[in-house]
Amino acid sequence: MSKRIAGPEIERLIQLLAKVPGLGPRSARRAALHLIKKKDQLFAPLTVAMRDALDNVKVCSRCGNVDTVDPCVVCTDPRRDEATLIVVEDVSDLWALERASAMNARYHVLGGVLSPLDGVGPDQLNIRSLVDRVAEGAVAEVILAVNATVEGQATAHYVTDQLSGYEVRVTRLAHGVPVGGELDYLDEGTLTAALRARTNF
Amino acid sequence: MSKRIAGPEIERLIQLLAKVPGLGPRSARRAALHLIKKKDQLFAPLTVAMRDALDNVKVCSRCGNVDTVDPCVVCTDPRRDEATLIVVEDVSDLWALERASAMNARYHVLGGVLSPLDGVGPDQLNIRSLVDRVAEGAVAEVILAVNATVEGQATAHYVTDQLSGYEVRVTRLAHGVPVGGELDYLDEGTLTAALRARTNF
Repeated sequence: MSKRIAGPEIERLIQLLAKVPGLGPRSARRAALHLIKKKDQLFAPLTVAMRDALDNVKVCSRCGNVDTVDPCVVCTDPRRDEATLIVVEDVSDLWALERASAMNARYHVLGGVLSPLDGVGPDQLNIRSLVDRVAEGAVAEVILAVNATVEGQATAHYVTDQLSGYEVRVTRLAHGVPVGGELDYLDEGTLTAALRARTNF
Repeated sequence: MSKRIAGPEIERLIQLLAKVPGLGPRSARRAALHLIKKKDQLFAPLTVAMRDALDNVKVCSRCGNVDTVDPCVVCTDPRRDEATLIVVEDVSDLWALERASAMNARYHVLGGVLSPLDGVGPDQLNIRSLVDRVAEGAVAEVILAVNATVEGQATAHYVTDQLSGYEVRVTRLAHGVPVGGELDYLDEGTLTAALRARTNF
């Protein structure tokens, strides 16, 4: 005998919350109860915020970033350097680089990596639009900030090939020891790369 | 220079998601991006489910459970034993006991535990309504399923005192070794309780 203990609206909420990354079935239940308890302080404002975001979110037709305007604020920001284009796999990578605030450049989001086994070929990624942006002539350097995975590196090679006909410098992120990292915990590949790319002290 | 990288609606969504238990600032950002990517499969349905739950959720005026009807389905379920009342601290405890499906009883949610330092006295908990339910005369046994903490036990003692004038058996959950638990990892208090309450094999 399966007994109902809460209304269908609550069951459905828990079921969908469990699909949010970071929450599982158990924490979704805890989250739902917390929302119900904090109805006015959190549940109602979050519901409104979700509706607002859902209704207004757009993918930038130029760079692939998500924003509530198209083109996005990064693409239209006049203070950014037109000549430097950072290519990332995902919007989350763009946000991570922006948090680091290391460069005042523009971005291009590929939307994934080449992965023939998963059916992701060049046409599934925003590579054509990247080549088009470079062809416009304002870009002097393309920085390939893709993940240091096999697929990421294969994608970097493919993109480099596609850009070979243009007057543009193609660079990639440096490999090395993460800042604050302990050598003892690093893999051999990283250590070898860090040794090879050693710099004067 | 703090640069805007996403629209205010998205920033607000991330800010509120970070307050959901189980999510922090970093996972809230990841969750928001996931929702935006799965706009039709998850973001839209979750937003609707939140609105539905928010508009319909009620606290049961009889037992303190949350549901979309008042009295809740547990209180109105005719198959449940009127004579047994399980007293819990929180709705999450009620749900946990229901998942175990060990008893077909009714519940009473105290809404917390006595904690003078936090300003929680008997009037902040649903103790008066518990005594009123018992006074109606249909309850034969009150099972105190409060947490095995100092506050939980103090609350149990207080509730027992309040019920002392009524013809009702007051019981508490057994202490002992958790099913599947290893003795080596258990604290002395639990082991002592389990030894004292040993049963014939």
